[in-house]
Amino acid sequence: MTATPTATATANVTATPQPVTVLGLGNLGQAIAAAFLDAGHPTTVWNRTRSRADALVARGARRAEDPAAAIAASELVVVAVLDSDTARAVLDPAADALKGRTLVNLTSSTPGPSGELAAWATDAGADYLAGAVYAVPQTLGTADAFVLYSGSAAAHERHRERLALLGRDVFVGTDPSLAAVHDVAVLSGMYGMFAGFFQAMALARSAAIPAADLTEHLVTWLKAAADALPGFAREIDSGDYSTDTSSLEMNAAGLDSILAATEAQGLPTDLIAPVRALLATQIAQGHGGLSLARAVESLPAPAAR
Amino acid sequence: MTATPTATATANVTATPQPVTVLGLGNLGQAIAAAFLDAGHPTTVWNRTRSRADALVARGARRAEDPAAAIAASELVVVAVLDSDTARAVLDPAADALKGRTLVNLTSSTPGPSGELAAWATDAGADYLAGAVYAVPQTLGTADAFVLYSGSAAAHERHRERLALLGRDVFVGTDPSLAAVHDVAVLSGMYGMFAGFFQAMALARSAAIPAADLTEHLVTWLKAAADALPGFAREIDSGDYSTDTSSLEMNAAGLDSILAATEAQGLPTDLIAPVRALLATQIAQGHGGLSLARAVESLPAPAAR
Ligand SMILES: NC(=O)c1ccc[n+]([C@@H]2O[C@H](COP(=O)([O-])OP(=O)(O)OC[C@H]3O[C@@H](n4cnc5c(N)ncnc54)[C@H](OP(=O)(O)O)[C@@H]3O)[C@@H](O)[C@H]2O)c1
Ligand SMILES: NC(=O)c1ccc[n+]([C@@H]2O[C@H](COP(=O)([O-])OP(=O)(O)OC[C@H]3O[C@@H](n4cnc5c(N)ncnc54)[C@H](OP(=O)(O)O)[C@@H]3O)[C@@H](O)[C@H]2O)c1
Repeated sequence: MTATPTATATANVTATPQPVTVLGLGNLGQAIAAAFLDAGHPTTVWNRTRSRADALVARGARRAEDPAAAIAASELVVVAVLDSDTARAVLDPAADALKGRTLVNLTSSTPGPSGELAAWATDAGADYLAGAVYAVPQTLGTADAFVLYSGSAAAHERHRERLALLGRDVFVGTDPSLAAVHDVAVLSGMYGMFAGFFQAMALARSAAIPAADLTEHLVTWLKAAADALPGFAREIDSGDYSTDTSSLEMNAAGLDSILAATEAQGLPTDLIAPVRALLATQIAQGHGGLSLARAVESLPAPAAR
Repeated sequence: MTATPTATATANVTATPQPVTVLGLGNLGQAIAAAFLDAGHPTTVWNRTRSRADALVARGARRAEDPAAAIAASELVVVAVLDSDTARAVLDPAADALKGRTLVNLTSSTPGPSGELAAWATDAGADYLAGAVYAVPQTLGTADAFVLYSGSAAAHERHRERLALLGRDVFVGTDPSLAAVHDVAVLSGMYGMFAGFFQAMALARSAAIPAADLTEHLVTWLKAAADALPGFAREIDSGDYSTDTSSLEMNAAGLDSILAATEAQGLPTDLIAPVRALLATQIAQGHGGLSLARAVESLPAPAAR
C-alpha cells in the first residue's frame, strides 16, 4: 500500500474523520483507541493511571486531564473500564458534560447494573448504547470480532461506520440491558464448553493421553457439534421436538455410558451429570423419543415462573 | 459426470477393489456399506433384520445369510451395531470364521467393554482394530468426518486406503481400548458444550430472546473460544500456567456475575456452578493469578489417586 501525506496508511481509513473519546485504557480501551486512531479519527483519551495513555499519545491521540474534558472533546464517547460501578464512578463527576453526547458503554455488565447505568446516563441527557464485546484485544477490529449493541437505535445508526471499526456490529434491541442479557447467556454457553473441556482433559490425563492430542480431536468435534445448535434452536423456538435423529433416550444412554466410564477412571462426574438430569426430567414426562433439544424444557420457562 | 460400464461414477473409486464385509446395517452401518460400494469394493452385508439390506443389495451389495458367511467373504470385516454386548452376541457364533481376518469394530463403546471385546477377538485369531466414529451418516466420508482407531497398527496400515473412505483416519495407539477412552473424553466435552447451550437458551427464553437469534451469536463465539483450547492444553501438558491473559481470578469474577444474573432471572445455576467450584479450589490454593487452564488441576490426576 502506498502511503500519501494526506491519509494514514491503513485499510480502515474512513472518508469522514470524526472526533471520538475513549475513557478507560485497559487492555480493551487501548485496542479501541488504537482502532479509531488507525482509521484517522481524532481520538481523545483518558485513563485513571495517566501513563497508560502515553503510547497512544505518541501515536497521535489527544490526552484529556479528566473525564469531563475528555467527554467535551467528542460527540461520540466510548467507555471501557473494569465494571459498571467503575463506569458510574468515572462518569458521575462528568454528568453535565454528557448532555447531547452519545455514550457507548463497552464495559462488561450483567442486566441489572447495565439497566441502572443506562437510566442514569439517559437522565444525564446522553444518547446511550451498551455493547458486549466478543473479541480479545488482539482480534478487535478483525473479521473474528463482533459486538452486540442495545439501547438507542439512533445512536447505533449514527455511529455504525465508527463502531464497525471494532468488529461486526449487531443491534439486538432498544432495551439497553439486552446486550448484557445476551452476554450472560453467551458466556454461560462458553463456560459450559470449558467445563466439558476440563472434564475431557481430566479423562485424558487419567489415561496418559497428552492434553494437546485429545484437544486436537475435541476442538474439531466441538466445532462440528456447534453446527447442530442452530437446528436445536429452531426446535426450541417452534416447540416442535419431533425430529428423532438425536433423541433424548439415545443421548441419555450415551451419557450413562460416559458417566460410568468416568467413574471407572476414578473421576468425579459433577461437571457433566447435571445435563443428564435435564434429560431424565423429559424422559420421565414421556418425551424420550423426542429431540435432545427438549432438555431445555426442564429448565424453568418464563410462563412457569 | 459420465458413467462408464467399467467404473462406478464416483470420486472415491479406488485402484484396488478388495472385498469388505459390513455387519450391522443401522444408520451407521448403511452409510459405511454405501461408502465401500461407491468406491467399487465388493461389499458383503448382513443385518439381523434382513430387509435393511435390501437397498444396498439393489445397489450391488452381496447379502450374507448369517454373520459367519458374511465374515468368510472378506479379509476386512467391519462391525457397527448397537453396543459392545450386541457386537459380542453377533460375533460369538462366528468366532471360527474370524481367524486370520481383520475385524474393525466401529460400535461405540466405553474402555472396559471395548478392551474385553478386543481380547476376545484377538483370542479368536482376528487382527483387531477399534474405531470411534465422529460423523453422522450424512457426513460419513466427507472432509468433516474422522475416525480415531486403536489396536493393531498393522491392520490400520493394511486397510488405510479403505478406512479413509469413511473419514480422516487417526491411529491413537495400540491399546485397543484407547479409541473408547478418547471417545468418552470427547463426548464429555460435547455434553459440556450442550449443557452450556441449554443454560444459554433458558436465559434467552427468560428474556424473550428467540433461541435462534442467541444461538447465532453463541455458535460464533463458541467456535472462537474453542480456538483457545489448544493453548490451554499446552499449559496442561507443560504444567506451566504462568500466562495471565485469562486468569482464574478474572474468570471467577466473571462467573460470579453470570451466576448472580442467572439467579436474578429465576434460573438454576447447577449446569454452570460446578466449573466455578474448580476455579475456587485453585484460587484457595493461591493460584488465582495463573491461567484458567489450571482449573483442571482441581480434578484428580493419576498421581493423586
Ligand atoms: N480485554 C478484553 O479482551 C475484553 C473483551 C470484552 C470485554 N471486556 C470488558 O471490558 C472492560 C475492560 O476490560 P479490560 O480488559 O480493558 O480491563 P483491564 O485491562 O483490567 O483495565 C481496566 C480498566 O479499568 C480502569 N479502572 C479500574 N478501576 C478503576 C477505578 N476505580 N477508577 C477508574 N478507572 C478504573 C483501569 O484503569 P487503571 O489503568 O488506572 O487501572 C483500566 O483502564 C471489562 O468490563 C471487561 O470485562 C474486555
Ligand atoms: N449413527 C451415527 O451417526 C453414529 C456415529 C458414531 C457412532 N455410532 C455408533 O455406531 C453404532 C451403530 O449406530 P447406528 O446409528 O447405526 O444405530 P442404529 O441405527 O440404532 O442401528 C443399530 C444396529 O444394531 C443392530 N442390533 C441391535 N440389537 C441387535 C441384536 N440384539 N442383535 C443383532 N443386531 C442388533 C440393529 O439391527 P436391526 O436392524 O435388526 O435392529 C442395527 O443394525 C452405535 O454404537 C453408535 O453409537 C453411530
